[in-house]
Amino acid sequence: MALAEAGAGGRLLRWPRIVLFGDSITEFSFQENGWGASLAERLVRKCDVVNRGLSGYNTRWAKLVLPRLITKSAESTVAVTIFFGANDSALKDLNPKQHVPLEEYAANLKSMIHYLKSVDITEDRIILITPPPLQESVWEKECLAKGDQLNRRNATTGEYAHACVQVARDCGTDVLDLWTLMQKNQDFSSYLSDGLHLSTKGNSFLAAQLWSRLEKKLSALPSLLPYWRDVDHTNPEASLL
Amino acid sequence: MALAEAGAGGRLLRWPRIVLFGDSITEFSFQENGWGASLAERLVRKCDVVNRGLSGYNTRWAKLVLPRLITKSAESTVAVTIFFGANDSALKDLNPKQHVPLEEYAANLKSMIHYLKSVDITEDRIILITPPPLQESVWEKECLAKGDQLNRRNATTGEYAHACVQVARDCGTDVLDLWTLMQKNQDFSSYLSDGLHLSTKGNSFLAAQLWSRLEKKLSALPSLLPYWRDVDHTNPEASLL
Repeated sequence: MALAEAGAGGRLLRWPRIVLFGDSITEFSFQENGWGASLAERLVRKCDVVNRGLSGYNTRWAKLVLPRLITKSAESTVAVTIFFGANDSALKDLNPKQHVPLEEYAANLKSMIHYLKSVDITEDRIILITPPPLQESVWEKECLAKGDQLNRRNATTGEYAHACVQVARDCGTDVLDLWTLMQKNQDFSSYLSDGLHLSTKGNSFLAAQLWSRLEKKLSALPSLLPYWRDVDHTNPEASLL
Repeated sequence: MALAEAGAGGRLLRWPRIVLFGDSITEFSFQENGWGASLAERLVRKCDVVNRGLSGYNTRWAKLVLPRLITKSAESTVAVTIFFGANDSALKDLNPKQHVPLEEYAANLKSMIHYLKSVDITEDRIILITPPPLQESVWEKECLAKGDQLNRRNATTGEYAHACVQVARDCGTDVLDLWTLMQKNQDFSSYLSDGLHLSTKGNSFLAAQLWSRLEKKLSALPSLLPYWRDVDHTNPEASLL
C-alpha cells in the first residue's frame, strides 16, 4: 500500500496520513502536550498526522470546506477524525453565528461521512469525536470577560454528543464519546483549561482514548524505511532503494 | 501559490509543507516539547510540518532515500531542513557502520541540495543544520552501558559542523550552526539529554533558532481559510468556497 512506481533509483515512498478535522480543539492539538503531537510521536515512521483544525468552525462550514481539503488522490489517508460540536451547540439566541440546530448537526456529520466514502475513505477509517463536557462556571467567566453572557450549556452540548454517537451507529463508523467518558464517575473540571478547551490532562486523556481506537486500525502499518541496524552498510542501495 | 483548480463546489486548497529531513534528532522532534511539534504549532493554518527523521542514518544513506521522499509534485514544499552529521561523525574505527568520511559528508550534503534544486526546491528554501556538540562524559556512559566504547568525539563532530557551514556558504543555502551556537559562552550540557540527543531545553533552543530563520522565509504564507469571525454566516459559501 505504501509503495508505488517512481523515479531515480528507487520507488517513491508514499507516506500515509491521518487527517485530524475539527474545530479549535483540533487546531490547538499541537500545542505543548497536545493530543495531535502525541499521536504524531506515536506514529513516527508510520504515517503523518495532519492538522486540519479550524477554530470557531461548526459542521455547516466544515461540510463546505471538507471537499477542498480531502480529495480522491494517490495519498493514502488511513484515518480521519471528525471532531465538531462545541460550536454547533452554542446557544441559538446568544450565539447565532456559530449555532447549528441539532438535526442539522447530525445531517452535516452524515454528509461528511458520505463525502469521505465517495473519495474511498471507508467508514472503518473514520472516527467521530463528540465535544467534551462544558464546565459552565469557568466558561461563563471567559464569556463575561469578553462582555458576553454564558453562551453554551453542558446539557445542550450533551444532546449534540448523543446525536454524534447516534450518527456513528447509523453510519457504522467508530466514535469517541468524550462528553460521556470525561464525566464518568469523576469530576471533569481538570480536563479543561477554560471550561471548554482541553487542559494538559484533557489532552492526555483524549490522546489515550483515541490511541486505543487507532491502535487496532493502524496495526498493519509498517515502519517506513529500514531500521538503521538492518541497513547493509557494505551495500546500502540494496537496503534502501 | 496555495490554490489550484478543483472539484465539487470549491477550489482544492493545497496545504504547503515543510519537510524536516534528518536523523534521530529529527525523528524525535515530536516528542514532548520537541522542536518539530513546536514548529507545527507556530505554523498551524499556514503549512504542515512533515517529519522525515530517520534515526541512525548518515548522509550516505540519506542521499539515497531523499528522491524516494521528495519528488517534483503539485505539493508546495516551502522549506526543507537537512540535519545530519551526528552519525557521519562517529569514529571510523569504533563505528564503521555509521561513519562517513568528512569529505564525503560534505559531498553528500551538496548532492542533496543539488537534488532538491532539480525538483524546484530552490536554495533559499533549504536550511542546513549542523550536529549539536557532544558531551563526551555523558555519551560515554551510554556507550559503556551497551558494551561499547566512546564512539564519538566533540572535536570531530565540530569538524563536520564546520564542513556543513562551508557547504551552505558554497551552495547559498541558510545554515543553523547548532554546534557553535550551543557552545557560545556557555556550558552546553543542559541542552542535551544523554550527551548526544536534545533535552527539553535543547529542543526549545533549536526551535527558537530555527524560527528566527524561518520567520522571514514564511512571512508571506497566508492563514488558510478565513478566521471564523470573518465568515459571513448568512452566506457561508461566499466565504468558504
